[in-house]
Amino acid sequence: VNAEIIAVGSEMLTPSKLDTNSLFLTARLNELGVEVQAKSIVGDDPHLLTAAIRIALDRSEIVILSGGLGPTMDDLTREAASAATSRPLEFHGEILRLIEARFRRMNRTPTENNRKQAEILEGAEILVNPNGTAPGQWIEASGRVLMLLPGPPREIEPMFVDQCLPRLRALLPPVVIRTLFWRITGLGESQVDALVAPVYSRYSNPVTTILASLGDIQLHLRAHAATAAEADALLDPVAREMEPLLGDHLYSKEGLSLEEVIAQRLVERGETLAVAESVTGGMVSTRLTAVPGASRWFAGSMTAYTEGAKVRPLGVDPEILQLHSAVSGPVAEQMATRARVLLDADWGIATTGFAGPEGGDPDSPVGTVFLASSHPSRETQALKVRFLGDRERVRQLSTQAALDLLRRQLA
Amino acid sequence: VNAEIIAVGSEMLTPSKLDTNSLFLTARLNELGVEVQAKSIVGDDPHLLTAAIRIALDRSEIVILSGGLGPTMDDLTREAASAATSRPLEFHGEILRLIEARFRRMNRTPTENNRKQAEILEGAEILVNPNGTAPGQWIEASGRVLMLLPGPPREIEPMFVDQCLPRLRALLPPVVIRTLFWRITGLGESQVDALVAPVYSRYSNPVTTILASLGDIQLHLRAHAATAAEADALLDPVAREMEPLLGDHLYSKEGLSLEEVIAQRLVERGETLAVAESVTGGMVSTRLTAVPGASRWFAGSMTAYTEGAKVRPLGVDPEILQLHSAVSGPVAEQMATRARVLLDADWGIATTGFAGPEGGDPDSPVGTVFLASSHPSRETQALKVRFLGDRERVRQLSTQAALDLLRRQLA
Repeated sequence: VNAEIIAVGSEMLTPSKLDTNSLFLTARLNELGVEVQAKSIVGDDPHLLTAAIRIALDRSEIVILSGGLGPTMDDLTREAASAATSRPLEFHGEILRLIEARFRRMNRTPTENNRKQAEILEGAEILVNPNGTAPGQWIEASGRVLMLLPGPPREIEPMFVDQCLPRLRALLPPVVIRTLFWRITGLGESQVDALVAPVYSRYSNPVTTILASLGDIQLHLRAHAATAAEADALLDPVAREMEPLLGDHLYSKEGLSLEEVIAQRLVERGETLAVAESVTGGMVSTRLTAVPGASRWFAGSMTAYTEGAKVRPLGVDPEILQLHSAVSGPVAEQMATRARVLLDADWGIATTGFAGPEGGDPDSPVGTVFLASSHPSRETQALKVRFLGDRERVRQLSTQAALDLLRRQLA
Repeated sequence: VNAEIIAVGSEMLTPSKLDTNSLFLTARLNELGVEVQAKSIVGDDPHLLTAAIRIALDRSEIVILSGGLGPTMDDLTREAASAATSRPLEFHGEILRLIEARFRRMNRTPTENNRKQAEILEGAEILVNPNGTAPGQWIEASGRVLMLLPGPPREIEPMFVDQCLPRLRALLPPVVIRTLFWRITGLGESQVDALVAPVYSRYSNPVTTILASLGDIQLHLRAHAATAAEADALLDPVAREMEPLLGDHLYSKEGLSLEEVIAQRLVERGETLAVAESVTGGMVSTRLTAVPGASRWFAGSMTAYTEGAKVRPLGVDPEILQLHSAVSGPVAEQMATRARVLLDADWGIATTGFAGPEGGDPDSPVGTVFLASSHPSRETQALKVRFLGDRERVRQLSTQAALDLLRRQLA
């Protein structure tokens, strides 16, 4: 079954707006075994919009319109859908009364133009909108479905999930989707693909998707079948073949972030963590404290950005700082140990480096970073890495590498 | 002049891919006075793609295709454009030789399927691609322009800027664009719009755009005219009328971030800053150290996430902590002052609060945050605020509010 999505509104054609509704809709449709074969964005032009709806209904079994259902003159989705399907618009007094009641609840005076929002295509089912004024519309005829849905994400998402998905499920053959969410670090997107493509490319079910963000790769395996057991049976051999190829770069098989994996391990061990940051400037601490309940295992952190702050209050030995410079292995090691002692924690981790654009020296050009972890029962040994790219990229990759260093120590 | 953009490729129709090329292209086209009236994304289907190109050429003067120029069977843009325009594809041996030379430079063996990439529509101008293999194509006929461009951003962006923009400028009337970039905090998007819409809605040139991110609003005013002086003359009265409506919520008229404004003011005053964070967990420090050269004015920061860390090493008085609890005005004030003293800085700022999902008390439910700034010559007075939303939202809004508190003190 093929679907097509049309986002409506001239504001969606400006350089800063992305049609994110269509991503949400695509994900939900794919879960029903429906493929999206085209998407478009059309401005507030009645002729273009009517033509776009006609073309879509001509070639796709499911057509979803988002936006253009508001009360203003620019909101043309109802009129264009009416013209494209040759169904007249009918005024529904009870919808207008609901809209007016909503206005009164919010202590606002309903305006005359709301009348437009109570116009429904002949034969359409009304989709109520608890999160906004304009109702959606569902039109089903000769094996095709046309949906008119509101534009704001907090209106379209619940309306689609609560009212459109059940209707679609009733029309489509039953399907169960099972997905594996794997997370990988320390390898680039093309390296991961080169490792696992020889396996996944032999299968069309499960479908494998690789999502890359800076320093972090997500691998999604999605199988569909008539039952959950059948879907699992499709996933199992692919997962079993892929897993050893990724080695210990695969850090979660439950879609957890690196900081969530660290949190789990520290809670299991009943241990706490302290951080000393220079080049990452607070990013390691920010990511760790993003985990709810972090105060159970996160003792605190110190951003010691200047040499002065590394000496006092952090307590790095000024002679070591003098001898090796602030961006060096010995200083990273001292920072990790001092953070642990200062904050009375079991583990300490530290970062120091040159994020750029200025700084660096011949031995350690911009992008050079030293990372260290410290624990009373282990040897502290700094790791030297080099990242390419701008300041923000170096900071983010350093943060990820510091968390991964600790994750490996905790494994 | 109207334009239309078509992104090609089934991978662009998955739930995780956004067509960001079209945003880049829209921004550049708008600068030439060209409006984008529709955008679409079409999968690797020859019939759908041919139809989409025909429809676009029928209604738009400029049609830009991105993607589908690679060597594989799925790359169908050339064939579809050939069918839609009834122009045969011609093989250009010199292009194939360039592609093969590129492969050899990278120590790779050219494959047979590269031949496809040397096929050019009859009458097309070739757009060289220094950043990839497939050249672009420019077809101009009967007042219409069709461009076939590669999909990867690092290929399409320089090709468009270097080879398409000069050709478009030669075809279009001359235009100069001048833009004002204003940044606002402490007001919501709808509040900003309610304040300034009565002014900007009276003008179609300049065009006003409001971009909202969490706690931060950007207001762009873009005027176009034949000369820079004329464009400035169009901007001037609108800006003069709007500025007083925004009051001191308008924190930059040069598009600077809050942390960049703070950095400028501290450098001007020759002063330094220290931070103590609890609820924001390192985010204030992260944003401040994102500014290059922050070590000139950023002394350091302490994430004192637990009560223990607030007492030692930060140095909050345990009695005050006991009496008022960790989330309180007096503790925020002490944290700001202690950070300043501990890190030997001129200014200190601090955050403490409940980000959720757990925590809070009847007086201070989840979302309650206390902020404070400290300076030897000013009274330290904590600010109590309440934010709605999830943990991440509360943390981000608290960070923005803490930076804004300091910005106002430095004004």
